Amino acid sequence: MSQPPFYISDWNALARLVSDYEKNGIYLVTGTNSAHHCLPLLRAKWASAPFEIMEIQTGEKNKTLETVTGIWNRLLEKGATQHSLLICLGGGVVCDMAAFAASCFKRGMPFVLIPTTLLSMVDASLGGKTGVNLQNIKNQIGTFSNPEAVFMFPEFLESLPQREILSGFAEIIKHAVLQGPKAFQMISEVDPLHPGSLLPVLENSIRFKLKMTRQDLLEKGKRKVLNFGHTIGHALESYSMEGDPNSLTHGEAVALGMWIEAALSKEVCRLPETVFLRIKTLILKHFDLYPLKKEAVETILGLMFHDKKRTLPQRINFTLLEAMGKPVIDCYPSEQAIRKGLELLVSR
Amino acid sequence: MSQPPFYISDWNALARLVSDYEKNGIYLVTGTNSAHHCLPLLRAKWASAPFEIMEIQTGEKNKTLETVTGIWNRLLEKGATQHSLLICLGGGVVCDMAAFAASCFKRGMPFVLIPTTLLSMVDASLGGKTGVNLQNIKNQIGTFSNPEAVFMFPEFLESLPQREILSGFAEIIKHAVLQGPKAFQMISEVDPLHPGSLLPVLENSIRFKLKMTRQDLLEKGKRKVLNFGHTIGHALESYSMEGDPNSLTHGEAVALGMWIEAALSKEVCRLPETVFLRIKTLILKHFDLYPLKKEAVETILGLMFHDKKRTLPQRINFTLLEAMGKPVIDCYPSEQAIRKGLELLVSR
Repeated sequence: MSQPPFYISDWNALARLVSDYEKNGIYLVTGTNSAHHCLPLLRAKWASAPFEIMEIQTGEKNKTLETVTGIWNRLLEKGATQHSLLICLGGGVVCDMAAFAASCFKRGMPFVLIPTTLLSMVDASLGGKTGVNLQNIKNQIGTFSNPEAVFMFPEFLESLPQREILSGFAEIIKHAVLQGPKAFQMISEVDPLHPGSLLPVLENSIRFKLKMTRQDLLEKGKRKVLNFGHTIGHALESYSMEGDPNSLTHGEAVALGMWIEAALSKEVCRLPETVFLRIKTLILKHFDLYPLKKEAVETILGLMFHDKKRTLPQRINFTLLEAMGKPVIDCYPSEQAIRKGLELLVSR
Repeated sequence: MSQPPFYISDWNALARLVSDYEKNGIYLVTGTNSAHHCLPLLRAKWASAPFEIMEIQTGEKNKTLETVTGIWNRLLEKGATQHSLLICLGGGVVCDMAAFAASCFKRGMPFVLIPTTLLSMVDASLGGKTGVNLQNIKNQIGTFSNPEAVFMFPEFLESLPQREILSGFAEIIKHAVLQGPKAFQMISEVDPLHPGSLLPVLENSIRFKLKMTRQDLLEKGKRKVLNFGHTIGHALESYSMEGDPNSLTHGEAVALGMWIEAALSKEVCRLPETVFLRIKTLILKHFDLYPLKKEAVETILGLMFHDKKRTLPQRINFTLLEAMGKPVIDCYPSEQAIRKGLELLVSR
């Protein structure tokens, strides 16, 4: 599996690629927000090709096999073939689901990704992962499958709510922590809510993610460094999805996850206290606390035992840090240590 | 995607491979018949390793996303990881579904195929295709994904009903027609219901199929020759699934499909009448007629427009023959010619 090309602000490249598929049928999957804010821009820039639009429900709750089955049924009924093109226009949830649908429809039809959120630009759209949730557990069903190309249009960011921008910024923080002190310094000075200052950081972050995934497309080793913050983050996200009407965004969960995992890193990998404090301070500058009741800690520990990154039964796999820019994969902190970390979130 | 190894009657190879996965969990998906006739043999030969058994409903009607979702839910609930092993023990339907389940569970867990029918030994288990039906149309959803290995145990054939043996024999006929006059002569002399005479033919057929798929793993060109008999065959099979309580087996549908497509080959590719007659005679020696009402022809034409091999709208892709051993891919006979072919089945 090689890497797909990616383009920033290149409407011509998109038009060229799409025109190759015109005779075989073009289909577009999108969510409500992207249909409202981004689809009109797409239409204005590139009015000629007719395409069939399928709007799907967004949000983690709808990232299910049922939604994907809806896409499959529509594709079949509209006569799509394995030579048609599926355009995935949306945030991470829409792109992950539509890409999964494409990767299995007639054993694989070509697709392109047009991420419309900061999070999906720096994360979901890069690296060939597709997927849906099962039993409310994230991305349990999916494939590794590459798009024909990824197209990023930073102008889409202008319509994003602040909370969405911050959700993407959490992954940018993660990439910087993994890259090293220089990158971390650079993002410490950025105001994520001011898109102008975000652009150079965005491109650096995309290139870092691509470099990591290129080295390890099927996530067998190196790429695991990208899981920093995600073992705790996924569990918090699943937990908050279950009963909380105002559940955490992916980025909020990962930001809190990085804080807890940096704390674990002190114990397991001797991460210096000063580095821990720099990470914690930056996270709490941009993200709110998520106060938990004490009982919730046990529920979350239970959820973590379903994380798909876990390689052996009864042990939970973490990527931790020994220094800024020095991640350590395959750490297995004790249940006691994980519990202690999670208790940082307990409201007192 | 490289080719997986395959083993005939090699219980030791199976035991060796499976033991590598013991620490990560071993799961086995099987159907009712294989659970009854083949699983005890497996247990007797290889008693040590504990594995979790999931029995699923078989038959084309159950080759659905619902059945696969059932496998996914069970795997998740039983704590399977992406490093566990899924053993697929059964006919083509079970192997296709279980392999599809494995290829998407946590973005891909390793699996092995142990086909238990003649049809799945010479067809479904070779070539990396997985899949389920959608809206009663065959294999609309699936992946290209290779097992760790394929294990064939001809002793499983002894418990098969005659109709099942014949279903597999249809694919063996197809391989022989595609191979050439010598192979065709060889199978003309075989009594498929006498397993002793079948073994050399079986191995030749497996090697031919592997040779074809090796040259074209993602079915972009050469491998299309294997579709001979299948454009009509799939449509007949879908049609008979809809209302017929005693619907056609896959092999019966393909056998009749080869007859009709050999007739089409006379018109489109100048297949000599003598060759057509040899093929027709062999097919009607082993397979019953399937008498259709005249109205059924139009229904079947409609079904063919959903065949996933069709590359362009409004045209139906066939693999036909210009001689024994000389297939021609990408033929597009006229609707009128296809109708005339199908009318060979209409009872008078």
